[in-house]
Amino acid sequence: MTNAFTTSGVFGSLLSDPEIAAEFGASAFTTRMLDFEAAWTQALAACGVVTTQEANRALAAIRAFSHDSLGSGSDRDGVPVPKLVASLKSGLDENAARAVHSGATSQDVIDTALVLTCLSVLDRLSDRLKRVVAGLDALTDCAGDTTLMARTRMQAALPATVSLRLDAWRRPLAERLAQLEPLRAELAVVQIGGPIGLRDAPTPYLEECAGKAAEILGLSLGPVWHTDRSRFVTLGHWLSLVAGSLGKIGQDVTLMAQQGIDEIALAGSGGSSAMAHKQNPVGAEMLVALARFVAGQQGILAQAMIHEQERSGAAWALEWLTLPAMAETTGAALTHAERLIASIDRIGAPG
Amino acid sequence: MTNAFTTSGVFGSLLSDPEIAAEFGASAFTTRMLDFEAAWTQALAACGVVTTQEANRALAAIRAFSHDSLGSGSDRDGVPVPKLVASLKSGLDENAARAVHSGATSQDVIDTALVLTCLSVLDRLSDRLKRVVAGLDALTDCAGDTTLMARTRMQAALPATVSLRLDAWRRPLAERLAQLEPLRAELAVVQIGGPIGLRDAPTPYLEECAGKAAEILGLSLGPVWHTDRSRFVTLGHWLSLVAGSLGKIGQDVTLMAQQGIDEIALAGSGGSSAMAHKQNPVGAEMLVALARFVAGQQGILAQAMIHEQERSGAAWALEWLTLPAMAETTGAALTHAERLIASIDRIGAPG
Amino acid sequence: MTNAFTTSGVFGSLLSDPEIAAEFGASAFTTRMLDFEAAWTQALAACGVVTTQEANRALAAIRAFSHDSLGSGSDRDGVPVPKLVASLKSGLDENAARAVHSGATSQDVIDTALVLTCLSVLDRLSDRLKRVVAGLDALTDCAGDTTLMARTRMQAALPATVSLRLDAWRRPLAERLAQLEPLRAELAVVQIGGPIGLRDAPTPYLEECAGKAAEILGLSLGPVWHTDRSRFVTLGHWLSLVAGSLGKIGQDVTLMAQQGIDEIALAGSGGSSAMAHKQNPVGAEMLVALARFVAGQQGILAQAMIHEQERSGAAWALEWLTLPAMAETTGAALTHAERLIASIDRIGAPG
Amino acid sequence: MTNAFTTSGVFGSLLSDPEIAAEFGASAFTTRMLDFEAAWTQALAACGVVTTQEANRALAAIRAFSHDSLGSGSDRDGVPVPKLVASLKSGLDENAARAVHSGATSQDVIDTALVLTCLSVLDRLSDRLKRVVAGLDALTDCAGDTTLMARTRMQAALPATVSLRLDAWRRPLAERLAQLEPLRAELAVVQIGGPIGLRDAPTPYLEECAGKAAEILGLSLGPVWHTDRSRFVTLGHWLSLVAGSLGKIGQDVTLMAQQGIDEIALAGSGGSSAMAHKQNPVGAEMLVALARFVAGQQGILAQAMIHEQERSGAAWALEWLTLPAMAETTGAALTHAERLIASIDRIGAPG
Repeated sequence: MTNAFTTSGVFGSLLSDPEIAAEFGASAFTTRMLDFEAAWTQALAACGVVTTQEANRALAAIRAFSHDSLGSGSDRDGVPVPKLVASLKSGLDENAARAVHSGATSQDVIDTALVLTCLSVLDRLSDRLKRVVAGLDALTDCAGDTTLMARTRMQAALPATVSLRLDAWRRPLAERLAQLEPLRAELAVVQIGGPIGLRDAPTPYLEECAGKAAEILGLSLGPVWHTDRSRFVTLGHWLSLVAGSLGKIGQDVTLMAQQGIDEIALAGSGGSSAMAHKQNPVGAEMLVALARFVAGQQGILAQAMIHEQERSGAAWALEWLTLPAMAETTGAALTHAERLIASIDRIGAPG
Repeated sequence: MTNAFTTSGVFGSLLSDPEIAAEFGASAFTTRMLDFEAAWTQALAACGVVTTQEANRALAAIRAFSHDSLGSGSDRDGVPVPKLVASLKSGLDENAARAVHSGATSQDVIDTALVLTCLSVLDRLSDRLKRVVAGLDALTDCAGDTTLMARTRMQAALPATVSLRLDAWRRPLAERLAQLEPLRAELAVVQIGGPIGLRDAPTPYLEECAGKAAEILGLSLGPVWHTDRSRFVTLGHWLSLVAGSLGKIGQDVTLMAQQGIDEIALAGSGGSSAMAHKQNPVGAEMLVALARFVAGQQGILAQAMIHEQERSGAAWALEWLTLPAMAETTGAALTHAERLIASIDRIGAPG
Repeated sequence: MTNAFTTSGVFGSLLSDPEIAAEFGASAFTTRMLDFEAAWTQALAACGVVTTQEANRALAAIRAFSHDSLGSGSDRDGVPVPKLVASLKSGLDENAARAVHSGATSQDVIDTALVLTCLSVLDRLSDRLKRVVAGLDALTDCAGDTTLMARTRMQAALPATVSLRLDAWRRPLAERLAQLEPLRAELAVVQIGGPIGLRDAPTPYLEECAGKAAEILGLSLGPVWHTDRSRFVTLGHWLSLVAGSLGKIGQDVTLMAQQGIDEIALAGSGGSSAMAHKQNPVGAEMLVALARFVAGQQGILAQAMIHEQERSGAAWALEWLTLPAMAETTGAALTHAERLIASIDRIGAPG
Repeated sequence: MTNAFTTSGVFGSLLSDPEIAAEFGASAFTTRMLDFEAAWTQALAACGVVTTQEANRALAAIRAFSHDSLGSGSDRDGVPVPKLVASLKSGLDENAARAVHSGATSQDVIDTALVLTCLSVLDRLSDRLKRVVAGLDALTDCAGDTTLMARTRMQAALPATVSLRLDAWRRPLAERLAQLEPLRAELAVVQIGGPIGLRDAPTPYLEECAGKAAEILGLSLGPVWHTDRSRFVTLGHWLSLVAGSLGKIGQDVTLMAQQGIDEIALAGSGGSSAMAHKQNPVGAEMLVALARFVAGQQGILAQAMIHEQERSGAAWALEWLTLPAMAETTGAALTHAERLIASIDRIGAPG
């Protein structure tokens, strides 16, 4: 849900992406917070901080948690975790309760759950990005040799072929795909630091315990990053590059679709309430709007780097206000791009 | 709904505002689009373009419209209006159908409906803003004379009283209230331009017809503003001022609440999952985050001024991507501010 | 100087404006700081805080101040004023020294000097804006009746005349001109608050003394606005509207100048190092770039609203980093627009 | 020169960096454009497109070029290159003239010269960043074991030691240093594409010729990137991370320096014109302001990804308007950080 207007339903899925939105929804995110808690409980047991039996009782409570009603906890505490933890512990005896969250802090839960969310989002975006690249490959195969007037600074420059432009559309997207592995590696780091980021409890604290939790979650272990938000800002940067390259495609298509230029024909373009003869390149326009939106959000997300002391509530919340919308709009842009490319009936100089 | 994450429910209403969100929802917005269509139909009749009977049949269809399923129209056309108009006309004979939307265009409907939405949002924000100002007045009455160390550039400067700071919190908000009337006047202008903004149909077109529709809607009539988006950008500016002044309050409260400073005591501050003794100034932190978010969005919304030719799909959509979220987060900030001020148990120098 | 690259000289005045830059230069700004100090000295005398003779000796020192070398003071103090004041007082006896800056603070000097600067900048921008509007009027007179295809959503819509588009270019600029008086009134308020904004010294402090200084400077007196930065943010907003409306013109011209569209012919467009036949619409492109730049800066300037306690060094400096560049680039945009409009040899449908 | 105000001299070097500014100045940039032309001439000779003698005459003209007066060319053409090339060729016979710029285009020259500029800037920033990290290492050595109250969400959390915070300051900066090599590799790619990016002239064009030029310039050869601006946007992202991490340090220092907190003592802090007793943490405040500025610019720079067709004048100019200021302000932030850390007389809990 990019915002209340764009996701009202009135605008269809022009500017939103229910699939990516669901990744940030209550069900998915609570599941991932519980994944953290379960992994941490298992790690505490594996390291001998609690017994296997205590851990199993705790895991049963974690599995049985019903997802709703964390909101009131957030309203009070600024995060849902204190209420979540209290709820998990509420039916447990004191020993089993020690197997829940001991040594961890709210930020460990939320940051790790958000990392897992972002990795899943990247999987979905990656699939779509591959399809967009494949669509461009197919288009190049069938239309790459058609004549196209190259245009620089909005002026006709020299005759070329369609493949010149399609290569320029495709290459940056393929490079973003190639960057996915290092991006995932940078992002896929567990957050375990405890109350103030010392990673020093429970005593005797074992680096091995954090490592175990990371392993269970399929993440790596690195230094605590409570106050270093580079990971998420770098993810936002990648999204802005993807959306930006798609915005370039959109801009080009709107220009090619002009009467008098006529370098592209699109199936199923949008109609007008007042002019029945018009065919508007709606998907291409949305690519431009979405790219400008994502680009601008990056200038806000990057403000989250200024993270006071050992934890900033304000800077942290700024990530939540921007990154999910950036992911969703980039997702919507990829869907538009895939459809737009598939809808190209003709590209290149008019017959 | 500010985004899928912040409105998931997991974060309560920390960063969202269901009341403002509802203003941008499908039901409210469709109602306002229908308000436009009804006013236009009435105006067409009043100016003799259609008969009263035709208009009445059209109005019946407008009143009977069920709100759902405009999304597929937007997916195809980029806006919901062509589908809405086709649906309204579908049960009407040719003559009555002429009483629906004749001479108007999609943009007339959406822009006018969004103006009506924004005016209603301003009413709600105005009420809250008055309560925030009243809360500050009450606080000044009871604590204004308490000693407070004035601080400049983050350093203790000279002793003063709490009223110095409360005045600085209050004054810009009171000035925003005073600006509401001119802001409303600037905003409350009907959009009626027809397909390309000429306001020239149906023939014989009467400026009086547009004026009649405006009157019915409680709006004024001015020149067509299809491509001049100053109104909405100026609304965003006002929101950024309000949110910014609230962010200043939030920043001050977080600073005053520090141990060692102890210039404020808040009832019911947030708890920690790891440190039971902590009381976090959650509402104050959210004010800072929300202010930075709204400020940054203005830098994106203002890009919508670059609106190509007689209508830009891309620049237009950029408004939809930013303005509703700005309104909602400003709304959330006002709610936080009202609660935060009411929760101040003590302000000024400690005991 | 917008930045080191754009003002290097290598790019001519494509993206800079020496005249506006000079308003923010050392000589102009120091003169305005001295204007404040002189007005304040005169006001202190008028209110009987110092004698006329003391004031005259102080004024002589103010008039004799040589403008250089305040930078080292700023490097130490964060503002040039402590060094300026110390320098002014250095040759004065104790009594005359009391006639310099007594009761004022650095922020009073800098904010008031910046207000004076911005008012002068507005004068220059206003002159240019009037010439742009006049240019559009002249163009409408000679070419308004020419046929032009109206285009919506980047698609040919319906035939119209050039005046439809020229009106859409002209109207928002004329409205910005009409807003200049209220904008100037909002901006033209003296800053006199003293160390912490209490406006309470020297004793017996007279509101009349601040009023006198305001009168000498041609400004009005209102409440202290040390921490309320709405004035400058609103100025930035006005600049973003002006630049945005010019950006719309630029975008339209680049679209009209395309081969195949051929709706405009420009004298003296830019050449290419590789393609001698090309004529690039350079001024129009710059209008788009400058508009996007100014729009984006507003999202940063508005962050300055979050101004901690009685004075924020960080938020304050954010204004200095953004507002002068916004003024200068808006100035450059006005110059480009004036030239661009004057260079239109033909507008409207070809042949 | 970040802008006319901040570089006026009145503000010293609070918000500017003459060393980085000089990298973007006329002399440095023209030299780098000439470096490109010289490398290209040599490559043309090495590939047999021109004779060694022709190349030598061309190289003599390139070496003899006097740097001034390209501005009028930019004013006309939008870039300085057509005038530069015309000037280089003006004294050459036709054959030698063929050894200048043949097959290249303005964008090849400017993009490649800007790459060389950015690499040199990165060298300077890297040196400073190493000194900042070393300063933090030294501070950790001498004060790391001092007690410090850890603070989360602006509240005292648990006692810790200074090293907890210094590690959090140091680690992201060390990671940025570690990313420098891949960043340089991504950036250090020659731009050679010719008029429309086909890299197809002069005939018979040799990929080897572009490779030769790259080799001479110490750059690598990759696909043409005329319309893919990811490189520069990624550089901006890296700058925003560096500035952001420094902003976090600044924010922490301003908080630690508060009376009542007293966790840091700084030598030589700034004075006040009105309160002689005050010591303002000026450098720390500037770090916060500079970080917010750089973060926000990234939201504008990223808009440059939407680059129309085979070359966008508008999107291209947006890079020139933002990236140099981002580099200079990040440079200024590094200088402030180095000095700030060196000025720490005491850090940690007060005596």
